Amino acid sequence: MSLTHVDANHHANMVDVSAKEITQRSATAEALVTVNDAVSAQFDGSDLISKKGPVFQTAILAGIMAAKQTSQLIPLCHPLPLDSVKVDITFADHTATIHCTARTTGKTGVEMEALTGASVAALTLHDMCKALDPAIVISQIRLLKKTGGKSDFLAQP
Amino acid sequence: MSLTHVDANHHANMVDVSAKEITQRSATAEALVTVNDAVSAQFDGSDLISKKGPVFQTAILAGIMAAKQTSQLIPLCHPLPLDSVKVDITFADHTATIHCTARTTGKTGVEMEALTGASVAALTLHDMCKALDPAIVISQIRLLKKTGGKSDFLAQP
Amino acid sequence: MSLTHVDANHHANMVDVSAKEITQRSATAEALVTVNDAVSAQFDGSDLISKKGPVFQTAILAGIMAAKQTSQLIPLCHPLPLDSVKVDITFADHTATIHCTARTTGKTGVEMEALTGASVAALTLHDMCKALDPAIVISQIRLLKKTGGKSDFLAQP
Amino acid sequence: MSLTHVDANHHANMVDVSAKEITQRSATAEALVTVNDAVSAQFDGSDLISKKGPVFQTAILAGIMAAKQTSQLIPLCHPLPLDSVKVDITFADHTATIHCTARTTGKTGVEMEALTGASVAALTLHDMCKALDPAIVISQIRLLKKTGGKSDFLAQP
Amino acid sequence: MSLTHVDANHHANMVDVSAKEITQRSATAEALVTVNDAVSAQFDGSDLISKKGPVFQTAILAGIMAAKQTSQLIPLCHPLPLDSVKVDITFADHTATIHCTARTTGKTGVEMEALTGASVAALTLHDMCKALDPAIVISQIRLLKKTGGKSDFLAQP
Amino acid sequence: MSLTHVDANHHANMVDVSAKEITQRSATAEALVTVNDAVSAQFDGSDLISKKGPVFQTAILAGIMAAKQTSQLIPLCHPLPLDSVKVDITFADHTATIHCTARTTGKTGVEMEALTGASVAALTLHDMCKALDPAIVISQIRLLKKTGGKSDFLAQP
Repeated sequence: MSLTHVDANHHANMVDVSAKEITQRSATAEALVTVNDAVSAQFDGSDLISKKGPVFQTAILAGIMAAKQTSQLIPLCHPLPLDSVKVDITFADHTATIHCTARTTGKTGVEMEALTGASVAALTLHDMCKALDPAIVISQIRLLKKTGGKSDFLAQP
Repeated sequence: MSLTHVDANHHANMVDVSAKEITQRSATAEALVTVNDAVSAQFDGSDLISKKGPVFQTAILAGIMAAKQTSQLIPLCHPLPLDSVKVDITFADHTATIHCTARTTGKTGVEMEALTGASVAALTLHDMCKALDPAIVISQIRLLKKTGGKSDFLAQP
Repeated sequence: MSLTHVDANHHANMVDVSAKEITQRSATAEALVTVNDAVSAQFDGSDLISKKGPVFQTAILAGIMAAKQTSQLIPLCHPLPLDSVKVDITFADHTATIHCTARTTGKTGVEMEALTGASVAALTLHDMCKALDPAIVISQIRLLKKTGGKSDFLAQP
Repeated sequence: MSLTHVDANHHANMVDVSAKEITQRSATAEALVTVNDAVSAQFDGSDLISKKGPVFQTAILAGIMAAKQTSQLIPLCHPLPLDSVKVDITFADHTATIHCTARTTGKTGVEMEALTGASVAALTLHDMCKALDPAIVISQIRLLKKTGGKSDFLAQP
Repeated sequence: MSLTHVDANHHANMVDVSAKEITQRSATAEALVTVNDAVSAQFDGSDLISKKGPVFQTAILAGIMAAKQTSQLIPLCHPLPLDSVKVDITFADHTATIHCTARTTGKTGVEMEALTGASVAALTLHDMCKALDPAIVISQIRLLKKTGGKSDFLAQP
Repeated sequence: MSLTHVDANHHANMVDVSAKEITQRSATAEALVTVNDAVSAQFDGSDLISKKGPVFQTAILAGIMAAKQTSQLIPLCHPLPLDSVKVDITFADHTATIHCTARTTGKTGVEMEALTGASVAALTLHDMCKALDPAIVISQIRLLKKTGGKSDFLAQP
């Protein structure tokens, strides 16, 4: 078995998906953002009365917009239409948990769209909170689930 | 103390840097990518005879190009000229360690440029290796160092 | 009835069009740009001998190119292939009337592509004429017609 | 007096600002979005309990991000760093009033950045509300104020 | 016979492909980059021990990424999904020969994607070698082959 | 002497211009587009009565807009503000001669901006004329002149 994106001349290249079937595909990715007490205090209480509203909403939109730009960021990704991108963020114990789900009807999977959406949402949280905590850590960026391709994938819990 | 990017109306907004001084600024960020045995085997040996060359080179370029697009990805980041972006990747113990350093001569810091560069380099490694390991995890995305602004920052080791 | 782009958690999100049918869709939008005498004088006479040629041609191209970038500008728009974008501009009585028609064969409508194309064509006219008239007003940006979706739309005259 | 963006050969071209002085410049633009009763009802009450929060916040972010992309949308605009972009939206009498202020320290004005930000915020409101009111009209897109260039500008009230 | 992209009013406009059939299409383009002795010496020997590796790999990736942005660069090109983009570079007699092949399953050809990919790969070689040879010349950018449309094309040798 | 964009580890990387001085810099590049009789006939006569007007104007605008995107196309180019981009096209003997001049006040040269502008203008001519001549050849893309950096450059005639 070998790397799909490196050809016989040791050059990086896109995978040719001409012959692949068009199917409905989805992928869900996760990212965690761990913050200090000062940031955490800003997110106490409901969306409505804390700063969680504008901060999380900004991160959600950044994630959605980044997922749509995936093929311009990841060099060997295929440009493809998307049926939806959904980003959700929950917050508990100093940690924001970001889930991003991308869907397409196409010839190739949308794992990178989901991962890019989750990553940029996490980076946006970092940006908006870094004045209170420059040591914020983003972790656990990984694929949770993938359907519709040659083989499905489900991450270990 | 409060969040710099949320205004009195609870709306997200950019920080106004009109009055800030132009200084030479730099920031370095880190990201780790942990892979399984199958991927690790592809990276054995020197750059020259393994697949490390094309894979890492692709990730480096993706990181550099993404750092230059930071203000289009992170909603409240300022667009600014960059003096340099440098991405390095080392590999040991199933883990690629990515460092990205951005430099500018400007009114605002380049933490997000460094973090975005490191993150997209990590996502590109994920993309190129995911056929051999769909469970790849990206972790430890954080700022290592920042100079040239109001206050310097150095991460705990 | 409620807003399609706001979910149960009061977060903005894209509409999932996975289950929608692929049809031929079109949308036409309008924008008006009203200018003063100084600008109007530049546009007297035919395309060929006035400044109308280069100015309108630039606005037309800007509108076409912007329509193709709609999903990167409007956060919750779906990226989709376009079959055509057409921009026309007529000038009379100090007013440029811009029409933009977008067509796709896809799962979702192209209203925003048509509206974005008309708007950016209008902004480009503003840019090119603002030295002669900084008080230019763009108005009446609206959807004129939409076909191919669940329900057609035709604006009141 | 003639059009600054059309050269002697009747070709559109950028203005050369090499010789201009670097100054602090700002510009504020306005756009109005008029909606029907169904949309208006969604925005009753405070930000916190109506749908105004997520809808206006999305439009604000879209406006900010678009202002940063102005030189890629308006063909003859200069790419330049921005010190800040601020978007505000108020709602009364079926009309959302959008104000966008852009600031730079540079050789050329930011009128188009302010106008583009206001326009794309307006288009985003249209997008998010069009299911309830496809006949939404955007109007009164105009420059309100400009400072820091060769001559200041203040719109008639 | 007349120009397809100029309408009856002498305005540039996109071709409407609504009625065209979806087929598998491919196009291959070529570009040559001629360099002086100083640059040529850097590329002596195999990929592995010369500077050819990093330079050509960078050009290949730049070409692939540019091909994916073709519809944002060429004003009247249709945005469309791509099945693959492949860039190859060989070097002999002071000349790098670049081939770029693009494939799509769509309503319109990908000649411009292939030509844009080859051109930007060539420009990237120029950029990376210009310190040693500012007089580098790029030539012979042309379509070599096209299949899948109304008529095939094969360049004269 | 060695390649400036390849570091000690044989990885491509940006040149660090932190320590360079800010000066006024300009660069002019050239590209030729050779077409057959059928295309040439479309360009007979003055701009005003032939198809030269819309075709050349589109190419000029495409070149200007591409020059502004250079740092997003050429991986190791620095993003920088531009003072002006100017594109001119003349036509004689079946050949369009494109000149693109870029100017900046910055720390690094704008050769790639000029070359990218000329190249994309040439590609746009190709696109608009390819239905009449699929064998169009773009040639002679090269730097003509550069001023304002460490050393000036003037091409051999």
